[in-house]
Amino acid sequence: MKMIWQVYLSGEIHSDWRDEIAAAVKDAELPVELMAPNTNHGDSDDCGAVIMGEPGNDFWRDHMGAKVNAIRTRTMIENADIVVVRFGEKYRQWNAAFDAGYAAALGKSLIVQHPAEFTHALKEVDGAAMATCETVDQVIEILRYVTTGVLNR
Amino acid sequence: MKMIWQVYLSGEIHSDWRDEIAAAVKDAELPVELMAPNTNHGDSDDCGAVIMGEPGNDFWRDHMGAKVNAIRTRTMIENADIVVVRFGEKYRQWNAAFDAGYAAALGKSLIVQHPAEFTHALKEVDGAAMATCETVDQVIEILRYVTTGVLNR
Amino acid sequence: MKMIWQVYLSGEIHSDWRDEIAAAVKDAELPVELMAPNTNHGDSDDCGAVIMGEPGNDFWRDHMGAKVNAIRTRTMIENADIVVVRFGEKYRQWNAAFDAGYAAALGKSLIVQHPAEFTHALKEVDGAAMATCETVDQVIEILRYVTTGVLNR
Amino acid sequence: MKMIWQVYLSGEIHSDWRDEIAAAVKDAELPVELMAPNTNHGDSDDCGAVIMGEPGNDFWRDHMGAKVNAIRTRTMIENADIVVVRFGEKYRQWNAAFDAGYAAALGKSLIVQHPAEFTHALKEVDGAAMATCETVDQVIEILRYVTTGVLNR
Amino acid sequence: MKMIWQVYLSGEIHSDWRDEIAAAVKDAELPVELMAPNTNHGDSDDCGAVIMGEPGNDFWRDHMGAKVNAIRTRTMIENADIVVVRFGEKYRQWNAAFDAGYAAALGKSLIVQHPAEFTHALKEVDGAAMATCETVDQVIEILRYVTTGVLNR
Amino acid sequence: MKMIWQVYLSGEIHSDWRDEIAAAVKDAELPVELMAPNTNHGDSDDCGAVIMGEPGNDFWRDHMGAKVNAIRTRTMIENADIVVVRFGEKYRQWNAAFDAGYAAALGKSLIVQHPAEFTHALKEVDGAAMATCETVDQVIEILRYVTTGVLNR
Amino acid sequence: MKMIWQVYLSGEIHSDWRDEIAAAVKDAELPVELMAPNTNHGDSDDCGAVIMGEPGNDFWRDHMGAKVNAIRTRTMIENADIVVVRFGEKYRQWNAAFDAGYAAALGKSLIVQHPAEFTHALKEVDGAAMATCETVDQVIEILRYVTTGVLNR
Amino acid sequence: MKMIWQVYLSGEIHSDWRDEIAAAVKDAELPVELMAPNTNHGDSDDCGAVIMGEPGNDFWRDHMGAKVNAIRTRTMIENADIVVVRFGEKYRQWNAAFDAGYAAALGKSLIVQHPAEFTHALKEVDGAAMATCETVDQVIEILRYVTTGVLNR
Repeated sequence: MKMIWQVYLSGEIHSDWRDEIAAAVKDAELPVELMAPNTNHGDSDDCGAVIMGEPGNDFWRDHMGAKVNAIRTRTMIENADIVVVRFGEKYRQWNAAFDAGYAAALGKSLIVQHPAEFTHALKEVDGAAMATCETVDQVIEILRYVTTGVLNR
Repeated sequence: MKMIWQVYLSGEIHSDWRDEIAAAVKDAELPVELMAPNTNHGDSDDCGAVIMGEPGNDFWRDHMGAKVNAIRTRTMIENADIVVVRFGEKYRQWNAAFDAGYAAALGKSLIVQHPAEFTHALKEVDGAAMATCETVDQVIEILRYVTTGVLNR
Repeated sequence: MKMIWQVYLSGEIHSDWRDEIAAAVKDAELPVELMAPNTNHGDSDDCGAVIMGEPGNDFWRDHMGAKVNAIRTRTMIENADIVVVRFGEKYRQWNAAFDAGYAAALGKSLIVQHPAEFTHALKEVDGAAMATCETVDQVIEILRYVTTGVLNR
Repeated sequence: MKMIWQVYLSGEIHSDWRDEIAAAVKDAELPVELMAPNTNHGDSDDCGAVIMGEPGNDFWRDHMGAKVNAIRTRTMIENADIVVVRFGEKYRQWNAAFDAGYAAALGKSLIVQHPAEFTHALKEVDGAAMATCETVDQVIEILRYVTTGVLNR
Repeated sequence: MKMIWQVYLSGEIHSDWRDEIAAAVKDAELPVELMAPNTNHGDSDDCGAVIMGEPGNDFWRDHMGAKVNAIRTRTMIENADIVVVRFGEKYRQWNAAFDAGYAAALGKSLIVQHPAEFTHALKEVDGAAMATCETVDQVIEILRYVTTGVLNR
Repeated sequence: MKMIWQVYLSGEIHSDWRDEIAAAVKDAELPVELMAPNTNHGDSDDCGAVIMGEPGNDFWRDHMGAKVNAIRTRTMIENADIVVVRFGEKYRQWNAAFDAGYAAALGKSLIVQHPAEFTHALKEVDGAAMATCETVDQVIEILRYVTTGVLNR
Repeated sequence: MKMIWQVYLSGEIHSDWRDEIAAAVKDAELPVELMAPNTNHGDSDDCGAVIMGEPGNDFWRDHMGAKVNAIRTRTMIENADIVVVRFGEKYRQWNAAFDAGYAAALGKSLIVQHPAEFTHALKEVDGAAMATCETVDQVIEILRYVTTGVLNR
Repeated sequence: MKMIWQVYLSGEIHSDWRDEIAAAVKDAELPVELMAPNTNHGDSDDCGAVIMGEPGNDFWRDHMGAKVNAIRTRTMIENADIVVVRFGEKYRQWNAAFDAGYAAALGKSLIVQHPAEFTHALKEVDGAAMATCETVDQVIEILRYVTTGVLNR
């Protein structure tokens, strides 16, 4: 019963929600290994052009960067047991929905977390999830219960 | 060389872009069979509750509907050779991005169509696509070329 | 949009629910092909021993029969787009739950139908389903809506 | 020859059969790592509602809990080399049969253990198994023989 | 219920057992399409060298032929729903056992037919089969029952 | 025994070898359906830029075209039973070797045809093939023998 | 470059060839972990009946044993990178050919070793192999070269 | 976040580019494990014949060697998260393109590195890549960024 759970944290990169989960995992010594995309927005946008050279065109600049980042994100999703996707309050966050679809098609256990106001707009994503949470604390409690059986009532 | 291509048209449901593609397929007698989600917005929202009964809760009402629709959409994506995803001007369209991720994970050939202004926000989706178009006509020309070899210059 | 849906009807064999669905499919000309296990209870029990000879032991007699039936049931589930599993009022129906698990693991769209009183006992099975119905009519309406887009309100 | 076997113990949660197996594995230092569902019946029923909030409806309450538990059970079944399913004397145990079907469809080696009186009712489940046992001791002996080659005569 | 079953007939090539099955399928209008390896022993041995030229070495001559034949046999096994493997009285028939292993690993429904005297030597092959028959008539009855539900008592 | 074989013809586009095979298939009424990439060199190079607009950069121009062509080529390879790859006398033909690797990884039956002088340079590709031919006639004879059993001696 | 190769040694159980390979692996500190079936012939025959009880029928006695052994052999083949199959001088060895077919269908790298006199009878098995050896020493040299790059000339 | 990335380095064997990457991985303590084919050209050509005996024919000599090497290369590609393929200035390098196709079909993240002059000839290979580099330093920077998030500007 020593299984280490691989958990990929997808979605919002402008708050410290991944740190909250990491702290909880550490505090409770959960058998969980966290994975995440690069959360430095600027580096994430520029990585392709910085490394391979400016293509002289916005579309291809984004394309180069998106694909370099995808080496990381897709490999980690494929290696994950659980994929958590958080939708924050801002931005279009299509990449979060894309990751959710990607994880769902691979049969990964999907946990979605978003404000209640997005319920209708995210219904297809929630429909593919094993759990839909409104708070990061709920995500933490699910990880705790699933990996250790401890249910905080 | 009689292969019939299965093409699923995902995304925006508030314009007649699917009809444009269907007309072009018919006019040119392309070896293409088109598939699509239910595009009646109201039925799509209500189907779960109308058939199985109101659950008395908005979240679960959406959940029931989303899953009934997913029987259709996921089966069709799995049966498709090509998945076209159109992002329109309006709404959050997270289900379109979800479908794109789902199709990408299954290794389907993905064609994305959206206004140029979404290029940066959709870079991860475009990064998974075999082609990114700005117009429906471009989608049609790709389908024509890929399935028949005819390139309109 | 000429896709023919392959639908496997698993579970209870002591009522005429499959005929109801077949009649509805025929009446509405739904693009659906129905598949089913052998529903003759006696033949289903005896097939192995009748064809290959009595093994002189109840366990192996059942074993022989179960495997011959499984050639049909597993092949059909693997070929299905949708698997409907009905739990009737009587018997243990472990084979119905087994089929549901089998279908779920293969990623098939699962529709479960059972009396409301089984809700708690069947929660794991329902949890894997795209839709849970209480009546056969509801199953029919889902098949109609999913395959044709017609929603009877 | 240092392979560690991953063994998932599914089914009955109201006796101490998992402890018996764990003790035997420890005593004989079998190269086996055991996995199991959460066996606290109350927590298993309540986990969804306790963590994510009461949905105000029994069906959805069960649904939430079933899916949270499924994150654990399905991941473990997918990671297992061997899945042992025990059917006890009581309850309907549809989730045990569901797990058996799920494991069979994934090609896992299935060992089923149940009282002789269930032979006919469980014939489809037994038909998918590599071994059918009447006692937990028999399960232990199979694990011993398969993983170490020691056959206690 | 119009499914056409794809049945591959592997093994012995020196008797007319395939014709017996073909005749039974035709007589009873079973929904079965039969597939088979090339049963001309000489052509099967020589095909590689005749088409691509003599390699001047027995091992490679056999190798060339075996691989050309494998294009047919493996493709057909992969397309089959049911694989029947017959072991005759003579020869080593390692290719029959190889086909059985190949089919088993792909999850095909395997039916094995051989004289009772081979029971012990073929126990691993029989252990992977859904049915083990002693006569071709038994194979025919299984095909009839599985594909049509008719059980001749 | 009515199986229609799907055969994809990859590689050299500057000779009429595909026509030779098509003529032989037609003459002998082989149960074979041929598939091929677009063989118009200019259109194949320009298709991306002509349809979606010039990117103003040679690398991305080639990239756009390569991906549009890949929609066709990869789908067809995935649908094929047999993939024939011909290496001609001229050009680097890296796409032919890429297709061979792609087909091999998918477990397709690979037939390679090339002049004897390339034997050493193509040894890894030949090593993955079920047959290596020096002439197109040999390819035709293999298709004839594999699909009909007729061996022209 | 620290990969540990998983190597399954299938086939003949009446000589000490597995010990020879184990000694060579140990001497040269090859990055190889060896796996093997139970090689105690008597236990291998009796395991099912000894553990689960005599079925009172030879066929089912063999069946029980074969399936218990298959838990070990199939799991190990599925976990292997390389499967070595040795055909000895005696017995029918259908289980060795079955294992070869099983490994081939899973895409494992297959090494076959047998006396030259079996070349024609084993041509289909050899045709699926990455290497065919006449001696155990050759098998050892292949393992050495493949896993370390050392070629003893 | 302790994932160790498996990276396979395919292609050119006549320069020290693999050593450059190994040194950079070591210097920066990247969480990367490198894998590579045997890079001794002579041994790579001779391995089959040296171990198993000269076949007396150039084609089969190459064939034997190619397959022994393929045991290593295909296993490593299958185990890799990232496959880097370098095309050098010289030779036909069809095996590099073959490896790229093999990796692409398995859904591996592909990084291609080649001189700019090969852009047009390698467009299909580049079209399947997540990144195309002109220098080995660029490959190193991608590995650094993808595995650690450090972007050297």
